[in-house]
Amino acid sequence: MTIQELLGIPLPIVQAPMAGVQGSELAIAVTQAGGLGSLPAATLTAEALRRELAAIRERTTGPVNVNFFCHAAPAPDPARDAAWRALLAPYYAQSGLDPEALPAGPTRAPFSAELADVLAELPPVVVSFHFGLPAPDLLERVRATGAKVFSSATTVDEARWLEARGVDAIIAQGLEAGGHRGHFLSEDLDAQAGTFALLPQIVRAVRVPVLAAGGIADARGVAAARALGASGVQVGTTYLLCPEATTSAVHRQALTPQAGESTALTNVFTGRPARGIRNRLMRELGPLRTDAPAFPLAAAAVTPLRTKGESEGRGDFSPLWAGQNTTGCRPFPAAQITRALAESW
Amino acid sequence: MTIQELLGIPLPIVQAPMAGVQGSELAIAVTQAGGLGSLPAATLTAEALRRELAAIRERTTGPVNVNFFCHAAPAPDPARDAAWRALLAPYYAQSGLDPEALPAGPTRAPFSAELADVLAELPPVVVSFHFGLPAPDLLERVRATGAKVFSSATTVDEARWLEARGVDAIIAQGLEAGGHRGHFLSEDLDAQAGTFALLPQIVRAVRVPVLAAGGIADARGVAAARALGASGVQVGTTYLLCPEATTSAVHRQALTPQAGESTALTNVFTGRPARGIRNRLMRELGPLRTDAPAFPLAAAAVTPLRTKGESEGRGDFSPLWAGQNTTGCRPFPAAQITRALAESW
Repeated sequence: MTIQELLGIPLPIVQAPMAGVQGSELAIAVTQAGGLGSLPAATLTAEALRRELAAIRERTTGPVNVNFFCHAAPAPDPARDAAWRALLAPYYAQSGLDPEALPAGPTRAPFSAELADVLAELPPVVVSFHFGLPAPDLLERVRATGAKVFSSATTVDEARWLEARGVDAIIAQGLEAGGHRGHFLSEDLDAQAGTFALLPQIVRAVRVPVLAAGGIADARGVAAARALGASGVQVGTTYLLCPEATTSAVHRQALTPQAGESTALTNVFTGRPARGIRNRLMRELGPLRTDAPAFPLAAAAVTPLRTKGESEGRGDFSPLWAGQNTTGCRPFPAAQITRALAESW
Repeated sequence: MTIQELLGIPLPIVQAPMAGVQGSELAIAVTQAGGLGSLPAATLTAEALRRELAAIRERTTGPVNVNFFCHAAPAPDPARDAAWRALLAPYYAQSGLDPEALPAGPTRAPFSAELADVLAELPPVVVSFHFGLPAPDLLERVRATGAKVFSSATTVDEARWLEARGVDAIIAQGLEAGGHRGHFLSEDLDAQAGTFALLPQIVRAVRVPVLAAGGIADARGVAAARALGASGVQVGTTYLLCPEATTSAVHRQALTPQAGESTALTNVFTGRPARGIRNRLMRELGPLRTDAPAFPLAAAAVTPLRTKGESEGRGDFSPLWAGQNTTGCRPFPAAQITRALAESW
């Protein structure tokens, strides 16, 4: 079954939820164009989520996907956190920041009963999760809203696990994809495959529709995903320069067509591996460190450096999330990008 | 231009040269079926190469590709080598091998004037290289035979470098591919992309035909590669169970349809990163170590362990090269595999 059949939408394009670089504006534009727009809710409070869902309702009757992280909230680890701040101390000094007076960074809270309440009030057509699925009682509350449930798999095992728990579609997240890796059964990054290998193996292993994610930047990529058995695609990076996205100026500047050639997986920004364009913090501290605080605790100590850097036009400490193919990034309206992606389906 | 047009062959399938698991037999079968068979010459002496080329001549008039490694031969480093053997000492003890009496392992010699002489005697239609290109004088001798020259790129930069030196086709080696990574401009594995991202970016960057490699295991994969702009594909893993391959019994046994889900890049077998199915040596020592002797020197110390293990039916110390998609591996004749791969082109 294609994603169009599953959701009753004209185009096989899901806009990937991208926390930090977009809100309802981008989601609305993609849905209005005939794809599935997505609202990243990982950094939203219940009140902010309610506001965003209401804004979406006002502007479109089409389906929208609301995405949550469902990591286990880590136990505080003051010693690890102190060591992390000590590692960053030279950067605080260079940036003129007082390490004793750092504000808390943005939180990324896992899906919760409070957020489920908001979904019950303003039910979206699709609710998707990253890092597996929430606890059964919470998942049941999501289902009770009538929403279809999607989640990401980075391995065939994860896809089978998700299918066994009744998801309505699986996003096969190839290693090319930008942002956080969605793995949840194993932290072994070596076990994760490129889209070309992962997608057909997941398609072969499960019966639910599979969306391809990772490395898709144009209509040829969408056609290739279809050839490999995808029921649709999820595309993120390609939307980052859209006027409807809230991508920062330094991030936009970094998103050249060649940028995808110099990404890496890094955990220095949040504590979990995510793919971004290499910048100073990744080069000097990472890209992958075993001593980073657990997700999302690493972020708090980095955020002040990021804020200061961006205020001076530098992306040295900013997570410049991007996949391995940035050739589709254009400052065009999201509707135009969405239609162009779908034109060879 | 498709590979069929470039070489005058019926099918867009290049059988990947795989040193250690095949010789002329597999190459002949693929060429006879209408693809481009490949003879891996990395471990052949000049005399053995002459013999293999003569065997090919006897059996087919179709084009064959002869593949060479062109790494810089490393300077001997006795201290590093001794440390490597010390690391392996417990395994020698367990295997009942005398570390003082270890035979030399198989050599992987870079392309040389002596090998170029053999090509001049028995010129193949295609000569391909892994790890870049040989020195200009040697490359000139290859060209003088009339052979078309192919080489692998793992990044867009490498593809541009190869095109600038006049190669006739570029193999875009996605990170999914089995065996040795072909990188030669940078050792940074993070810079290497999956096929889905790498292939279209190389196609976009160069004008010569580009072959897709990595993760292609069936006709859908071949069709997807075509959608992404490939002029043909190079497939290796999928041929490993063919009767014409010389794949060892332990290697064949490891090549289940699921095996592709548990590969990793490792340098413990040869000193260079290569993708294989995880086994004991990779798990216990690797997969990637900074103290492994330079390619190909790491191999000599491991080979006796491998030989002993295989004689007892164990692949604990064997390089079980495979890509991230082993779902196409079947014990079918290579001609059948070749035709099946091409059926949706």
